[in-house]
Amino acid sequence: MSYADLETLGKKLESIEHAIAILSADEATNMPVGGGEKRAESVSFLYGLRHETATAPEIGDWIAKAESEDLSDDQKLAVREFKRVYTNATCLPADFVVRKSQAEIRSEQLWRDLRAKNDWANFAPALEGVVALAREEAQMRAEVLGLKPYDALMEQFDPGNRVADVAPVLEKLKSFLVDFVPEALDAQEQRYARRPAKSVEGPFPIEKQRELGLSMMQALGFDFTHGRLDVSHHPFCGGVPTDVRMTTRYKTEEFLTALMGVLHETGHALYEQGLPKDLSHMAVGQARGMAMHESQSLFVEQQLAHAPQFWQWAMPIVSQHLGENALKGWEIEDVVAEVNKVERGYIRVDADEVTYPLHIIARFELEQALIGGDLEVVDLPEAWDAKMTQYLGLSTIDNPKDGPMQDVHWPAGAFGYFPSYTLGAMLAAQQWQAIEKARPNVLDEIAKGDFSGVNQWRSDNIWSQGSRYSTPDLIKRATGSTLDPDIFIAHLKKRYG
Amino acid sequence: MSYADLETLGKKLESIEHAIAILSADEATNMPVGGGEKRAESVSFLYGLRHETATAPEIGDWIAKAESEDLSDDQKLAVREFKRVYTNATCLPADFVVRKSQAEIRSEQLWRDLRAKNDWANFAPALEGVVALAREEAQMRAEVLGLKPYDALMEQFDPGNRVADVAPVLEKLKSFLVDFVPEALDAQEQRYARRPAKSVEGPFPIEKQRELGLSMMQALGFDFTHGRLDVSHHPFCGGVPTDVRMTTRYKTEEFLTALMGVLHETGHALYEQGLPKDLSHMAVGQARGMAMHESQSLFVEQQLAHAPQFWQWAMPIVSQHLGENALKGWEIEDVVAEVNKVERGYIRVDADEVTYPLHIIARFELEQALIGGDLEVVDLPEAWDAKMTQYLGLSTIDNPKDGPMQDVHWPAGAFGYFPSYTLGAMLAAQQWQAIEKARPNVLDEIAKGDFSGVNQWRSDNIWSQGSRYSTPDLIKRATGSTLDPDIFIAHLKKRYG
Repeated sequence: MSYADLETLGKKLESIEHAIAILSADEATNMPVGGGEKRAESVSFLYGLRHETATAPEIGDWIAKAESEDLSDDQKLAVREFKRVYTNATCLPADFVVRKSQAEIRSEQLWRDLRAKNDWANFAPALEGVVALAREEAQMRAEVLGLKPYDALMEQFDPGNRVADVAPVLEKLKSFLVDFVPEALDAQEQRYARRPAKSVEGPFPIEKQRELGLSMMQALGFDFTHGRLDVSHHPFCGGVPTDVRMTTRYKTEEFLTALMGVLHETGHALYEQGLPKDLSHMAVGQARGMAMHESQSLFVEQQLAHAPQFWQWAMPIVSQHLGENALKGWEIEDVVAEVNKVERGYIRVDADEVTYPLHIIARFELEQALIGGDLEVVDLPEAWDAKMTQYLGLSTIDNPKDGPMQDVHWPAGAFGYFPSYTLGAMLAAQQWQAIEKARPNVLDEIAKGDFSGVNQWRSDNIWSQGSRYSTPDLIKRATGSTLDPDIFIAHLKKRYG
Repeated sequence: MSYADLETLGKKLESIEHAIAILSADEATNMPVGGGEKRAESVSFLYGLRHETATAPEIGDWIAKAESEDLSDDQKLAVREFKRVYTNATCLPADFVVRKSQAEIRSEQLWRDLRAKNDWANFAPALEGVVALAREEAQMRAEVLGLKPYDALMEQFDPGNRVADVAPVLEKLKSFLVDFVPEALDAQEQRYARRPAKSVEGPFPIEKQRELGLSMMQALGFDFTHGRLDVSHHPFCGGVPTDVRMTTRYKTEEFLTALMGVLHETGHALYEQGLPKDLSHMAVGQARGMAMHESQSLFVEQQLAHAPQFWQWAMPIVSQHLGENALKGWEIEDVVAEVNKVERGYIRVDADEVTYPLHIIARFELEQALIGGDLEVVDLPEAWDAKMTQYLGLSTIDNPKDGPMQDVHWPAGAFGYFPSYTLGAMLAAQQWQAIEKARPNVLDEIAKGDFSGVNQWRSDNIWSQGSRYSTPDLIKRATGSTLDPDIFIAHLKKRYG
């Protein structure tokens, strides 16, 4: 039976991906510096083996035969997703993949060097090469998939997402935010006038912060028999569903940044740990794309851990681990004001819940123009500056380092990825609204540190669904409606208005 | 060029082995319990891939062609070692390998269960099956390699070691030890009468013990840019030469056991870190077998760290990390007496430098008889008891758990491995004697914590040689003579007489 062949192949791929995931997590958390060269050789060999294994020509035949076999509904969905992944993995000629990956590696290395030197002029030609290849790639993907070029790029990260659906949603959000950011800043100023911002007095020993993070992870439902928390320079959530490797980074002078980071990654981890275990070897058993994954991390970070009820439960736990003086003189309102602080800034990764979408929307618009040929790399600094000035009132024209050179995505050839971040924030708000409808007392539950209700809803509606449905279908099945910008807008108004 | 094909293949094998080594180290040190099943699947897939890759039929052709190519002397040695490994890996039919490995896995699992229950009767049939397969294996290996059956088994662990050479050496050592053990025990009793054994008063915090171990590793030459120290239930030295993963296990009530364990594993680690880097992808660049590896760990543990001069340097370091009270009232003689304590016992892994070889020699004699068909499993308890009674004055007849059931080796099908331990101890003593001749002031160097001289000698003569030579050839090239039991005997007399 060809379905059985696909399962055997899936188990092989699962074993290879397991090795890559754990070796990569180990590299970031444990590997001594001199181990890097041989580690890179080993992981690169495994990536090659995975690609070779996942794109073998006979797989196409197996899929075609499996499609005509007598399968259960779940097996049919599994074959459909296997085919989608296989088509996406095989739609580029091998020599193009090599050419592209070499150009991207060179461009990313150059970017690391030149970003530090704020040197746009010498970086632009490399980016031009990457953009040219991305246009070519988008064209080829589009033809195979029967999609528009930019849609074909997004399809890799969030299956089913199309500009025709996403653009109006983000356009509406943009129109709202351009006016709302100044309002939110005013409102914040008035709040601070009544109640000045508090500060914490460290040092906060790393071991104590770690214990605090572990106890919060535990309460949120993280399964420590299937995962652990380590330290790395860039926090991430990696590993495999049966062995999730989460990391954070500590500063001794304050603890909120590390803690919020732990909460964010816990959201990713819960998704991985909640995926259907019997399908872990099949594409249909994997998480549904970047936006949905980000919705799970932002659900915990923004929907749960930015709410006053969360801190009603969490503040005593902070004191328990870091001592009574850690938040001495703070009330719930102070913590909430601290974690919900709004600030205009140049850097996306430092942005808050309110300004972050504008960073994303600017990139979404710019990269569509780059891929569509309506914008050339040489004109990018001006185009970037114009959008930042219009959306956030910040000019970046003299500072490309904090302008179009700030992110690794484009230098590394990732186009169509940026929207996932903000779509994730909106999906999270929409899930929260659905949960509030289903569980009117959910905020009381959270104030008691009881996350079983929100977890059960997310397990039933998101985690256990794996990749059975496209991103738009999954959110519709979960919440009853497609992505609705008004829900996120209402959330922001309520919290920051 | 076929030599180039062998190098390409070697790089592929190195990448696979890298992945296996790091995944295995991670499993023992970091993996949460629920990660085990998928980890086993991944590592087992990689083992299969390694076997398939290392035994492909075209490799035989490449080797044959490479043998007639115009190669450097070092390349010729590399081809010879490649051929040796390939021949050893391909000399058993695939279906036999599967049958054997299934029987061994079942037998080992049964052993874990029944050893705890001290149940020899129910375990014996499984061991009979394993022995039958080992006899068959030895016969097949012997035919391909042109060796005697037991020699063909030893060849896997210590290339070049033959019963004809090893047996007389161990026979001489046995004759000496059977009389010497009581003498050493008497001498020890007299020393204790003059100077009673000291004890330590804990607790010794694990973090402090860890720092002590790290500082000793550093002084001994461990390169922390290419390795690290972790904790595991069973201490080991794993990983790869560019990323050595060493472990230990701490008890808070005393620190000497963990410290001696760290020193032992550091010996293994130095060997791995000192292997020729440019040959890391070739068999000839690997460590030369189990006995030589054990000689490196025992060199550090027994030759260096059992010597008074070592403690002259090390005692202040212990105090520095664990506090002045850690060895309060101890003098160098007390530490030396403690680490050199001789005691008759049932268990090999708990045995000291003097009694350990008798445990090994008993096994060496018994497993030769088992493989040769001169002893059947049903008669093993009596045969074991007879040897233990004769060599150590201890009867195990009523306690198979601490008799022939104590080690995992036979249940797991490893025959021909045991002699490596004692050959390693003898090789270490022989290397020490050669170093003392070459560096008459070496004990003064050690008293100052200067290990550069002993490391340079071992690097030049052992580590950098990789697997260019057989075990007997390597020790002869390094010390000027083949394995000489009188050196080890003289060492024991001097230290324990």
